[in-house]
Amino acid sequence: MDYASRTSAVEKVVNDMRKRDSLLTLRGWRDEVYTIAASYNSPPLFAMERAATSAFGVRVYGAHVNGYVVDENDNYFLWIGQRSKTKQTFPGMYDNLAAGGIGNGLSPTETMRKECEEEAGIPENLLKNLKSVGAVSYCYEDENGVHWEGEFIYDLKLPKSFIPKAADNEMERFQLLSISKVKELVIADNFKPNCALITLDFLMRHGFITPDQEPDYFFILENMHKSGL
Amino acid sequence: MDYASRTSAVEKVVNDMRKRDSLLTLRGWRDEVYTIAASYNSPPLFAMERAATSAFGVRVYGAHVNGYVVDENDNYFLWIGQRSKTKQTFPGMYDNLAAGGIGNGLSPTETMRKECEEEAGIPENLLKNLKSVGAVSYCYEDENGVHWEGEFIYDLKLPKSFIPKAADNEMERFQLLSISKVKELVIADNFKPNCALITLDFLMRHGFITPDQEPDYFFILENMHKSGL
Repeated sequence: MDYASRTSAVEKVVNDMRKRDSLLTLRGWRDEVYTIAASYNSPPLFAMERAATSAFGVRVYGAHVNGYVVDENDNYFLWIGQRSKTKQTFPGMYDNLAAGGIGNGLSPTETMRKECEEEAGIPENLLKNLKSVGAVSYCYEDENGVHWEGEFIYDLKLPKSFIPKAADNEMERFQLLSISKVKELVIADNFKPNCALITLDFLMRHGFITPDQEPDYFFILENMHKSGL
Repeated sequence: MDYASRTSAVEKVVNDMRKRDSLLTLRGWRDEVYTIAASYNSPPLFAMERAATSAFGVRVYGAHVNGYVVDENDNYFLWIGQRSKTKQTFPGMYDNLAAGGIGNGLSPTETMRKECEEEAGIPENLLKNLKSVGAVSYCYEDENGVHWEGEFIYDLKLPKSFIPKAADNEMERFQLLSISKVKELVIADNFKPNCALITLDFLMRHGFITPDQEPDYFFILENMHKSGL
């Protein structure tokens, strides 16, 4: 069986389950296919509607960017997005500057560049500062199934003069926030959970959360990098 | 039982085991006590000779610093130490700029500052750039017992003009090496293993190893942040 036949077989199964309304997650049909592979850089096995991936527990991958500004006094600020209120998933919640799923034939870095342009209107010349800085891994179960995810993290230092533009209506607005304000938002309950994790990783990597002040330093880092449930 | 009585009881047991030569690890007596606690920031329970900790499998903590220089063309260089040939553990192997165990009543950051001064002769005024950037957790077993360790990581950006000095004879020399040379050393077999891990973390956080080029990106990060065996 080749890629096309496997994809078509999977499509039949998933469409049938949707018709029978047998899986809650399929009510949130995304009309977006993910390429499924043994790993993010292995040859694709087949494509599958994004909403169905949690029913099968396959691992999915994404890329997120922390957009930040450093002022003349070495104070850091982070660009925090707020998701559109009409977005299907996590409407109105806080988000990173840009993020997107991997699985359309683009590498993690290519995906990240594309999302920076599409979601935040970042021009090509500012993307020369885009830097791969790590990843988080997590797995959780909810009423939609098993979400096993790996998210690549990028940092992008931006000039003070640049203002992101919500180019594709995914985001309602962007705010440039101080580190203390960002810490408050991460702790509060209206941050998209995996985006809060990406932001937490930024705060730890840049010395804004230290082992001297945080008793659960190892616990946090170990739980940010877990394979499986 | 208080701290002093517990420490004295443990001391008796460990001294007795040493006299009977019943544990291989005690042949490598360090004459250095570690404070044992439920966590690095919990109240100390008792003190124990460092060489005995692996016999009991207690978790021990350390702090390591990546000392680096960025030249005018934005090229990065890392200060890599080479351990003294007379050092008891890992003689002659490559090391970070400075590192030390936690457990003498100092916080992770205080320990790091002290080691920077003692092991690499870094003056106080350069330590203002010292930044907490994460940690690695790992656990392995060898002929000496179980080594369950948590290492805090610091980055220290240094001016090109500063040359580290092996102040306390722990290091034989320091070399300022390009990223490509550092990558070669990390892969080769003469790097102290946990120091190679700290260096690998630096390379990943600073964009010198990316998910586009490294197929085991998640595997590496997950295994760098593991609790227990």
